[in-house]
Amino acid sequence: MPSPVRLAEIVSALGGELCAGSGADMAQVEARVIHRLAPLESADSGSLSFLSNPRYSAQLAASAAACVIVAPAQREAALGRGAALVTDNPYLYFARLTQWWAARNRRPAVLGVHPSAVVEPGARIHASASVGALAYIGAGAQIGPGVVIGSHGHVGADATIGEHSRLAARVTLGEACRLGARAVLHSGVVIGADGFGFAAELLADGPQWVKIEQLGAVRIADDVEIGANTCIDRGALDDTLIDQGVKLDNLIQVGHNVHIGAHSAMAGCVGIAGSARIGRYCTAGGGAIILGHLQLVDHVHITAATVITRSILKPGQYSGLFPFDDNASWEKNAATLRQLHALRDRLRALEKK
Amino acid sequence: MPSPVRLAEIVSALGGELCAGSGADMAQVEARVIHRLAPLESADSGSLSFLSNPRYSAQLAASAAACVIVAPAQREAALGRGAALVTDNPYLYFARLTQWWAARNRRPAVLGVHPSAVVEPGARIHASASVGALAYIGAGAQIGPGVVIGSHGHVGADATIGEHSRLAARVTLGEACRLGARAVLHSGVVIGADGFGFAAELLADGPQWVKIEQLGAVRIADDVEIGANTCIDRGALDDTLIDQGVKLDNLIQVGHNVHIGAHSAMAGCVGIAGSARIGRYCTAGGGAIILGHLQLVDHVHITAATVITRSILKPGQYSGLFPFDDNASWEKNAATLRQLHALRDRLRALEKK
Amino acid sequence: MPSPVRLAEIVSALGGELCAGSGADMAQVEARVIHRLAPLESADSGSLSFLSNPRYSAQLAASAAACVIVAPAQREAALGRGAALVTDNPYLYFARLTQWWAARNRRPAVLGVHPSAVVEPGARIHASASVGALAYIGAGAQIGPGVVIGSHGHVGADATIGEHSRLAARVTLGEACRLGARAVLHSGVVIGADGFGFAAELLADGPQWVKIEQLGAVRIADDVEIGANTCIDRGALDDTLIDQGVKLDNLIQVGHNVHIGAHSAMAGCVGIAGSARIGRYCTAGGGAIILGHLQLVDHVHITAATVITRSILKPGQYSGLFPFDDNASWEKNAATLRQLHALRDRLRALEKK
Repeated sequence: MPSPVRLAEIVSALGGELCAGSGADMAQVEARVIHRLAPLESADSGSLSFLSNPRYSAQLAASAAACVIVAPAQREAALGRGAALVTDNPYLYFARLTQWWAARNRRPAVLGVHPSAVVEPGARIHASASVGALAYIGAGAQIGPGVVIGSHGHVGADATIGEHSRLAARVTLGEACRLGARAVLHSGVVIGADGFGFAAELLADGPQWVKIEQLGAVRIADDVEIGANTCIDRGALDDTLIDQGVKLDNLIQVGHNVHIGAHSAMAGCVGIAGSARIGRYCTAGGGAIILGHLQLVDHVHITAATVITRSILKPGQYSGLFPFDDNASWEKNAATLRQLHALRDRLRALEKK
Repeated sequence: MPSPVRLAEIVSALGGELCAGSGADMAQVEARVIHRLAPLESADSGSLSFLSNPRYSAQLAASAAACVIVAPAQREAALGRGAALVTDNPYLYFARLTQWWAARNRRPAVLGVHPSAVVEPGARIHASASVGALAYIGAGAQIGPGVVIGSHGHVGADATIGEHSRLAARVTLGEACRLGARAVLHSGVVIGADGFGFAAELLADGPQWVKIEQLGAVRIADDVEIGANTCIDRGALDDTLIDQGVKLDNLIQVGHNVHIGAHSAMAGCVGIAGSARIGRYCTAGGGAIILGHLQLVDHVHITAATVITRSILKPGQYSGLFPFDDNASWEKNAATLRQLHALRDRLRALEKK
Repeated sequence: MPSPVRLAEIVSALGGELCAGSGADMAQVEARVIHRLAPLESADSGSLSFLSNPRYSAQLAASAAACVIVAPAQREAALGRGAALVTDNPYLYFARLTQWWAARNRRPAVLGVHPSAVVEPGARIHASASVGALAYIGAGAQIGPGVVIGSHGHVGADATIGEHSRLAARVTLGEACRLGARAVLHSGVVIGADGFGFAAELLADGPQWVKIEQLGAVRIADDVEIGANTCIDRGALDDTLIDQGVKLDNLIQVGHNVHIGAHSAMAGCVGIAGSARIGRYCTAGGGAIILGHLQLVDHVHITAATVITRSILKPGQYSGLFPFDDNASWEKNAATLRQLHALRDRLRALEKK
């Protein structure tokens, strides 16, 4: 259970302007004890909540929260209800608050190497790092200060991990792969499996696949987060590169020799084929697919479930998903879609008359 | 190898009406020894088979099975071939038969904690539970009667598991997550990784992502099955909820704060974005995607590979996939699709003439 | 770091015709020391590179590589630049070269069973096999000559692994599943989780799902490669079958009782539903979905993100993805698509006039 904290302590740590609300006593508001952070609708008198989107102002009025974080534009509305914490960007404030809250309440990692872990000779583990139960650290691996390796973690030979990175239980970091500082890797992540590379040997019946050993590695810059069961393959000859601040959700596939530029973010189930080059500040919605050997410039945004089949050289939002419908309507339209080119020709013929 | 069993024993355990078939002796039929359960086409004289779909009646006539489970409507056809076991719902009977068969033949779990497992102080493990080799059980975790934790399992601190749940090898149940009774979790499942939540901090070049620590957990009701490498993220503030009897296939992504209603089922590779609320008795075909913050009422059925982009408030079947074609035909129609709106305008212009 | 090697040694091992280039001394060329294999554009004087596609001839001229592998048609162009290694199929040569290179440089597996591994009584492990740290080998499992099981590997009871197969860290091979010779399985692979099989029991409110225990296994022939976090489910009654030389990329779902024919290859994020029968020499691009109980003959090629909804009985390329566009154009076309059938009727009406 999180340890409760007075409102004044939060404001002292994170800033913002605490306002008592009409008729309330500031000293009493400052002394309010916060037991949890909560959405407006489920907040109670021990909760600190936030309003990031003015659309939800109705929920603000009805909320039982001890205090609500709001933008200056919502100050009056908030104070009509009760105490408020006014700040320019409530959602950003809330994000930092969750970090502060988690740091206070997180079960501290036990420093050092758990006796059940296996560490090969030649691995270098900083004294302030934590290696969990039943983890494996390969020869020549280097693990920086404050790093946490969860239970069943696997750090391959000669891999390196920058300071204060946190690997949840059961993360695999392959041989010679390099992970920057402050990374967050979730369970089931696989960094550095072989890229999918084969040469076709044409035999009488058809092609047989001859493996191209993948001799590159994966290099991941600082402040990257990677979701559960996401895979980033090692490069064929050169390395696969994930730049600073990239955020990847769960179950994403990143092929060999992909580059993802700084501060790009991808939602769950995205697939990025080999050698795609993705710019900075890009985003992709869930289930989007980016084919191989393409280039996306900075600030390209891909809608969920869209398939990118050629390079995009102009920033913007790109989409390509079939709009869903009730099944009967879809069936009729989908059937007609298979005659669309013919319909165009018929239309053209009519126009010529 | 499964241990063989006489037909009479099966009928005694599971019910149904055993019929000898024309000219056969009932005592001899009851004494037939069943070595395996088999589909009609590969069944032999030691096999028990079933016919659940009248479409396959031709296979019934040709089957060499010792006995076939059929519905009353197929009784005559079945008896013309040989012995039959008549029951109202042959497929349901067959399902129960596989359970009975597996329970008889399954390698029994070894009670207690394997000496290679790591159990933190304060974990409570029922005496009738089994904790496999090299598993990890966190502090404060509670493991109920008859639970089986496979090898390399990870049960986080303060997580709870209800009675008779079975976790295959290498399942991760995160800190403070709660799993009901009789769950079946397959290898690679990750329950309770962080949801994908970031606040954008707008800097000169573009947004940088500030992590929102995920302070909720995952709560899973009774009788839930979750397929291999499927991920269910913990909630941001409140919990992610999976209700009773839900069945999830492999490689599914369930985002933070999703609710899935009782008895809903999702096929492989489905993605459900954060805060989606899915009703009871819903289904989704393989690769379907449900975007975030949507609501689906009870009894909504999503066709495979369909992307749900808005709430669905009426039960029914919904579809939205591009019909495939030979590549040349598809190319012509897809190219024309990019001019569809212009074609509509041209049609309208013609109509006005 | 890879150990350097003289060019002459490579030619002696792998064949091909070494040509010194205009004005160069063959003895000096043969003595050139190769430190790495590299793409044309990043090659330096210690690199061996290759040109497999004549489209990249411009890069050939500019490359600083010590030597370039080329086809006979590029001999003259290559020799104008410098040393060349001429061979009929440069990409295939390159593939074999990477294998030779990796075999020379790979950290040798430590023979025998790591002391931290758990091996159940009755498992048979060949003396030339290697079982990694913290691995688990079930009762009755059989592990052939030269096999490598990575750390945290799980080999279920009665499973078998053919000679020289390599399982990366954290691979799960389920009970009674059979893996052929020379397999390569990457981290997170799950072979033999339960197929997704339930019988519906119709209750008042809707169907509840009654589990069909999956009594089959998975059989995988020789020379198969399976990518990270890919899942292959066990059969319901009979086995799921993966034939010789099949290559599967990461995060692929293969349902129960699927058959994949020899030398077929599937890119990342593909989903194959239960009981699909896929021929030999087939391919599927990333994110393609093949529905259940379908048949694909030999030499069928599926474009990325295409959904196969009926059997394909004729070899060829099949496609069905929505072409992406800038968001505004897509929105207009997608909205019109929902009226396509009506547009066809309006066109027909005009034609009748």
